[in-house]
Amino acid sequence: MDHEFDSQIAIERSADGSYAAQLSAGWVVGGGVNGGYLLAVIGNALRASLPGKPDPIAVSAYYLSAAAPGPATISVGVRRDGASLATAAADLRQGDDSRITALATYGDLGRLGDDVRTTAEEPVMPPPDECVPNTMAPPEVRAIAPLMDRFDMRFHPEHIGWAVGQPSGNGVLSAWFRLVDGREPDPISLLMVVDALPPVTFDLGMPGWAPTLELTAHVRARPAPGWLKVRHATRNMAGGMFEEDCEVWDSTGRLVAQSRQLARQPRG
Amino acid sequence: MDHEFDSQIAIERSADGSYAAQLSAGWVVGGGVNGGYLLAVIGNALRASLPGKPDPIAVSAYYLSAAAPGPATISVGVRRDGASLATAAADLRQGDDSRITALATYGDLGRLGDDVRTTAEEPVMPPPDECVPNTMAPPEVRAIAPLMDRFDMRFHPEHIGWAVGQPSGNGVLSAWFRLVDGREPDPISLLMVVDALPPVTFDLGMPGWAPTLELTAHVRARPAPGWLKVRHATRNMAGGMFEEDCEVWDSTGRLVAQSRQLARQPRG
Repeated sequence: MDHEFDSQIAIERSADGSYAAQLSAGWVVGGGVNGGYLLAVIGNALRASLPGKPDPIAVSAYYLSAAAPGPATISVGVRRDGASLATAAADLRQGDDSRITALATYGDLGRLGDDVRTTAEEPVMPPPDECVPNTMAPPEVRAIAPLMDRFDMRFHPEHIGWAVGQPSGNGVLSAWFRLVDGREPDPISLLMVVDALPPVTFDLGMPGWAPTLELTAHVRARPAPGWLKVRHATRNMAGGMFEEDCEVWDSTGRLVAQSRQLARQPRG
Repeated sequence: MDHEFDSQIAIERSADGSYAAQLSAGWVVGGGVNGGYLLAVIGNALRASLPGKPDPIAVSAYYLSAAAPGPATISVGVRRDGASLATAAADLRQGDDSRITALATYGDLGRLGDDVRTTAEEPVMPPPDECVPNTMAPPEVRAIAPLMDRFDMRFHPEHIGWAVGQPSGNGVLSAWFRLVDGREPDPISLLMVVDALPPVTFDLGMPGWAPTLELTAHVRARPAPGWLKVRHATRNMAGGMFEEDCEVWDSTGRLVAQSRQLARQPRG
C-alpha cells in the first residue's frame, strides 16, 4: 500500500465472516488507542460488508473500554439493506473484551444531490504557515501521544493559549489538518479526523485525557484533496461530562463532516 | 396509571426476556408513528433492563422503517454493565419488520456532580401566553398529525411564519412545550421531546415529512417540573439531507437535553 494510514486501518476478512485488524501502536494516546482511528478501522470493515454503499453517512460509536495496540476483531451485522442506504451494527473486540459497539448507515455520497444550502460559516483561519504546528509540542507530550506523529496540524494562534498555560476559556479549538503520509482525505479518514484534535477541554484549562463515551459522525460529502479545517467547540460542561461538536471543512470550503461526542471531563 | 403518556410508553416483560409495547395511534404523524415517542418506548425498555441505572445519558437510534400503531416488541442486549454506566443495544420490531435499532448508555443522573459550566444561551422567548399555540393549527393539519393533541406547544411568534406561508429561511424553530396530560418531564420523556416539534425545514419553506435517518440524544440532567423550552436549528442542508440540532431547557433555565438528528429533506 502507498500510504501508512491505509495499512494501519487495513482489515482482512476471516473465515467466520468477521474482520481482523492490527491496531497500530502509532495511534496510541495516553492509556489507549485513539478513538477516531478505531472508528476508521470499523468504518473500513463496514465498507467491506456493504457492497454498493461505500460511504459512511452516519456512524454512532459507544466506547466500552480502552483499546491496546495489537490484534482486534470487527464483527458486522447488517440490519437493513435498502435501495440507497444500508444500516449495520459493528463490534470491535480484543480477545474477550468489547472495545466499541457501533451502528452505522452507509450509502453512496457521490449519488446524493448537488444542492448545498449551508448556513454554517467556514472557520476563518490564518494560512497554515502562520499557524502553530503540532511539531512544537514538548517532547514529554509527544512521548505519551505517538499519534501526533501521524498529523500535520496547524493550530489557530488564538486557540493555542492552553499550550503555554493560557487557555482562553471559550471552549473552542481549531486547526488545519492533514496526514503526514500524504494520504488525501476520504469519508473513511474523516471518521478519524473528527476525533484527532486535542479535547476541547484543553481550551477550558483542563489538560488531560477526556474519555469519549459516545461519538456520532455525519459525513456529508466526499472531501476534496488538500488541507482540512477542523473546529471543536463545547457549550455544555456539566455533571462531569461535556459535549464536543466537531466540524470538518474541506479545501473547497464545503462542510464535509459534523460530529458530536459526549465525553467525561478530565480529572485534575 | 395517572397520565396518558405513561400508559402509552408502557412496556411489559415477556417470557423470552423481550418487552411488549402497544404503539399508540395517538402518536401518529403523517405516514408513521412519531420517532421521539418510539424512542421513549425503547428508553423505557432499556430502563427496565438496567437496574440501578435509571436514566438515559446517550441514546442513538437508527430508523429503519416507519412504525404503525399496534403491538411492537423491544429486545435489549447489554453490552457492558459498569460501576456507574451501562451500555446496551435495543431493537424495536413489529412482526418481522425492524423499525429502529439503537444503542444507549444509561446511568444515574442524580449521582453526577453539581458543577455546571454551560456557555450555551437559554433561548429568549415571550411568555407562553404571548406565543402561538399549536391548537391554532388548521383542522387538516391536525387530522394527519394526531400527535399534536398530546402537546401544549407555544411557538415563538418570530419562528412561526411558516404557518402563514412566510418562513424566515433561518432554519430555526422554538417553542414552549409540555404534555397536555399534565405529566411532568423526566429523562425518558425528554427522548420524545427532542423530536416533538415540526421539522426545522418548515422554517426553510419546506413543509412536509422529514424522515429521520439517525437521532442521538444526550440527557444532561433531570428536568425540573414545568414548561420546557425547545429549540431546533439546522446549519447544513445539502445533498437532500439536513442535520437538526435540538436543545431542551427546563423551567430553572438548565440545558437538560441536546440532540442531533440526520434527516432527509422533505420532497417538495
